[in-house]
Amino acid sequence: MTLVATPVRLSTSAANFEADFKARLHWSADTDAAIEQRVADILADVKVRGDAAVLDYTARFDALEVFDMNSLELTQAELKAAFESLPTAQRDALQAAASRVRSYHQAQKKASGESWSYKDEDGTLLGQKVTPLDRVGIYVPGGKAAYPSSVLMNAIPAHVAGVAEIIMVVPTPRGEKNALVLAAAYVAGVSRAFTIGGAQAVAALAYGTATIPAVDKITGPGNAYVAAAKRRVFGTVGIDMIAGPSEILVLADGSTPADWVAMDLFSQAEHDELAQSILLCPDAAYIDAVQEAITRLLPSMPRAEIIAKSLNGRGALIHTRSMQEACEISNRIAPEHLEISSNEPHRWEPLIRHAGAIFLGAYTSESLGDYCAGPNHVLPTSGTARFSSPLGVYDFQKRSSLIEVSQAGAQILGKIAAELAYGEGLQAHAMAAEMRLID
Amino acid sequence: MTLVATPVRLSTSAANFEADFKARLHWSADTDAAIEQRVADILADVKVRGDAAVLDYTARFDALEVFDMNSLELTQAELKAAFESLPTAQRDALQAAASRVRSYHQAQKKASGESWSYKDEDGTLLGQKVTPLDRVGIYVPGGKAAYPSSVLMNAIPAHVAGVAEIIMVVPTPRGEKNALVLAAAYVAGVSRAFTIGGAQAVAALAYGTATIPAVDKITGPGNAYVAAAKRRVFGTVGIDMIAGPSEILVLADGSTPADWVAMDLFSQAEHDELAQSILLCPDAAYIDAVQEAITRLLPSMPRAEIIAKSLNGRGALIHTRSMQEACEISNRIAPEHLEISSNEPHRWEPLIRHAGAIFLGAYTSESLGDYCAGPNHVLPTSGTARFSSPLGVYDFQKRSSLIEVSQAGAQILGKIAAELAYGEGLQAHAMAAEMRLID
Repeated sequence: MTLVATPVRLSTSAANFEADFKARLHWSADTDAAIEQRVADILADVKVRGDAAVLDYTARFDALEVFDMNSLELTQAELKAAFESLPTAQRDALQAAASRVRSYHQAQKKASGESWSYKDEDGTLLGQKVTPLDRVGIYVPGGKAAYPSSVLMNAIPAHVAGVAEIIMVVPTPRGEKNALVLAAAYVAGVSRAFTIGGAQAVAALAYGTATIPAVDKITGPGNAYVAAAKRRVFGTVGIDMIAGPSEILVLADGSTPADWVAMDLFSQAEHDELAQSILLCPDAAYIDAVQEAITRLLPSMPRAEIIAKSLNGRGALIHTRSMQEACEISNRIAPEHLEISSNEPHRWEPLIRHAGAIFLGAYTSESLGDYCAGPNHVLPTSGTARFSSPLGVYDFQKRSSLIEVSQAGAQILGKIAAELAYGEGLQAHAMAAEMRLID
Repeated sequence: MTLVATPVRLSTSAANFEADFKARLHWSADTDAAIEQRVADILADVKVRGDAAVLDYTARFDALEVFDMNSLELTQAELKAAFESLPTAQRDALQAAASRVRSYHQAQKKASGESWSYKDEDGTLLGQKVTPLDRVGIYVPGGKAAYPSSVLMNAIPAHVAGVAEIIMVVPTPRGEKNALVLAAAYVAGVSRAFTIGGAQAVAALAYGTATIPAVDKITGPGNAYVAAAKRRVFGTVGIDMIAGPSEILVLADGSTPADWVAMDLFSQAEHDELAQSILLCPDAAYIDAVQEAITRLLPSMPRAEIIAKSLNGRGALIHTRSMQEACEISNRIAPEHLEISSNEPHRWEPLIRHAGAIFLGAYTSESLGDYCAGPNHVLPTSGTARFSSPLGVYDFQKRSSLIEVSQAGAQILGKIAAELAYGEGLQAHAMAAEMRLID
C-alpha cells in the first residue's frame, strides 16, 4: 500500500472558508470521566498510604516489582554512568545543547527576572523581590516517547532560576531505562531521580511520601493520567500548562525551498497523529510545490504512517490573499510553533501577536529550536499562546511585593486608605491606617 | 453577651508545637461535588444557548429579570455618572489610589516586562517578544462583599500591560448597583461592563455569546461557584489563582505599639470567619500586650463578631525562640501578607523566602497596601506564595521566543539537532536540520 498525504487545501477567498477553517482547527481537550475517577482514587490513596501505594501502582502499571523505595531511586552514579556510556557524538551534542539552553535562560533571567525597588517622593519604598522556588518536580515520560531534550528544557530553567532541589520522575516500564534520558538528567543537574510515573508519581511529588520529597511545582509532559493528576493537584502545588497535541504553522512567501518546508511540516506531523501542520501562503504555485515535495518525500520517512495520518486528518495548506492576511490568520490560530519562512521575516514578525515561538527565515527550522537554539521547547499549544508563554526561568521563580511606608508617607496614604476602607465597610482596615496618623 | 477573642497561644519550645501548628494551619480547598456538577451544567448550557442562558440564570440567581442583553450592559455614561455622584473625598481617594497603583505597575512593566534580544557569536538572533493579551475579563463580586479596590487592582495592571479591551462583569442582585464599584470601573478604564455574575458570567466570558465577547483570560475573586467555573474553563482561557481565605502574618520584635499590631490582626480577621491572623514574636511579654489590646479594642469594632470568630477559630499568637526562628516559621507558612513589624525590618527581610507581599516597619500597615501603596492586593493565599506571585502586569502579558538562525549558525546547530533527533527516533526533525547543511 502506498501512503498518501494530502492535507486539505483551503483558500481564504472561498465562500465556505470560515466554516472549513474552524472545523480543521477544532480540537477538544475534554476530559474522560473514567480517567478522572481513577486518577482521583490514585491521588487519594498515595496521600494516605504514601510509599506503599507508590510501590503497588508501580508494580501494577509499570510491571516493575520491587520491595522498597530505594530500588526506585536512580543514584547520581547511575546517571553519570549513563552519560559516560553514550557514543561521543551524542555526549557532545547533549552538552552543546545544554550549554546553549543554559545561556539563553541566563539571558532571560538577567533581562526580566531580577528584583528591583524604588523610592517615591514621600520616601515610600516600593519593589518586587524575586526568589526561586525551593524544590520542583519534573515529570519525564518513559516508554516509546522518551525525550531527553525535554529533560534539558525542564531542568535547566529551574537550575538557572536558582531552584535548590530538582526531583525527576520517569517511569521505566519493566525496568527498561533510557540511557539518553538518564544522561540528560546528569547534564542538566537533576538532584534526585525516581523511576516512577503516572498519577502515582504526580501524587508523590505533590503530597510527599516518606521517600519522595514534596515539591512546590510540577512541570513536564505526560499522558492523559498525568495531565488529569496535574490538574487535580494544582493549588497544592504549581503546575505548568497542560499540553495538547503539538502544532506548527508555516507562513511562507515562497522564497524557501519547498522541500525544506515540507520536511518542517513532517517534523511536527511525525510526533503524533493528532499533531497539526499548517501552511499559510499567498502563492498557489508554491503550495503546489510543497504538496509535490510532500508526496515525493513521504515514502522515505521512517515514521511515514504517522505523518500521513496527521497531515490527512489535521493538516492544511491554506492559500491566502496576502502575507498580511496570512499573519492575521496566524494570530487567530496562535500556534505553538510559527515559522516565518520568508526572505524578509522582520517585515512580518511585527504583525504577529500570538505564538509560542517564532522561527525567522529559511534557515531556522523548528527542529533547531526543539533541540539546541537555546529558547525553551515547552510551548503553549491549542491556541493558549493567546494568554500563556513558553516555559521559562520565570516559571521557577515567584515574586513578593515590597512596601516600606515612612512615617511621612503614612500620613498621606493613611487618609486615602481610610476613606476607601470606610467606603467598603472595613472599619478595622481604616482604623489600622488612622492609628498611624500623628495628628 | 461579651465577645472574646483569644487566639490560641503556641510556643515553638513546647513539645507538641509541631502538631498544634499544623492543625492550626490546616485549611482544605476541597471542592463540593454538588457545586461542581451544577457549574458544569451551567457552563454547558451557556456554551450552547449563549445570551438566552445568561438571561435565564441572571433572572434565577440574581433576581434580575430583563428581556434583552442590552439591559445588562452598563454604559460608559453610567460609570461616569456613578463616579460623579460620589462625595469629593471618595472621588479623590479613588483617583489617588488609582494613580499610585498605576505608577507601581508601570515600574513593574519597565523593570521586567519588555521585549529583548541578542545575537550570539554565530550570528544567531535569540530573544523574547512580550505582548499584551488582546482582551481580558474581570470578575467583580457583587452584593455584600463589593470591593471597588479590587476593580482597580485587576483592571489597572491589565491596562498598563496594554490590553486593548477590559470586560468587567459584576452581579447586581435585584438590580442593586454599588456606585463605588461603578466609579472604580470608570477610574480604572474598563472598556465594557455587564451586570452578570456567577458561573454563567464566567462561561459567557470564556466562550463568548452574541453579546458578551470571548476573552483570553479571566481574573478576579468570586464565591465557590465562580471558583469552580474558573477552574473548569482554565485551558480555554487563562485564569488567575483560585484564592482561599485571606491571611496576615505579623513578625514582631516588640518595637511597634501593641495596639497597632492588634488592629492589623483585626483588619485581616474582619474579612471573613475563615481569615487567618498570626503573630510570631520572640517576646512573651509583648504577646501578652497584644492580647490585652485585642481584648480592649474588640468591643469597639463594628465587625467584632466576625473578628472574634476568625481569631478564635484560626488565629494564633506564637512565641518563638528568636526572630530568626520566626522568619523560618513564616517561610513554612508562606503567608499572603507578611508584616515585618520591627525597627530593623531590613535585617529580617533577606531571611524571607516566601510571601505574597512584605510590609516593612511599623508604619506600613497592611491596609495601606490593600488600598493605595501601589503594589497589587491580589496575592497568593494558603501557602501558594511558595510557587506563585501577586497579580501583576506579567499576568496580562505573554512571551514568544524569537529565533533567527543564520546560514552559518545552521551549519553548527544542524549537526547537534540531528544527532539528538536521531537519538529520539524523530527522523523528520533530523532531516529538516540536515537539509540546511551546505556540504
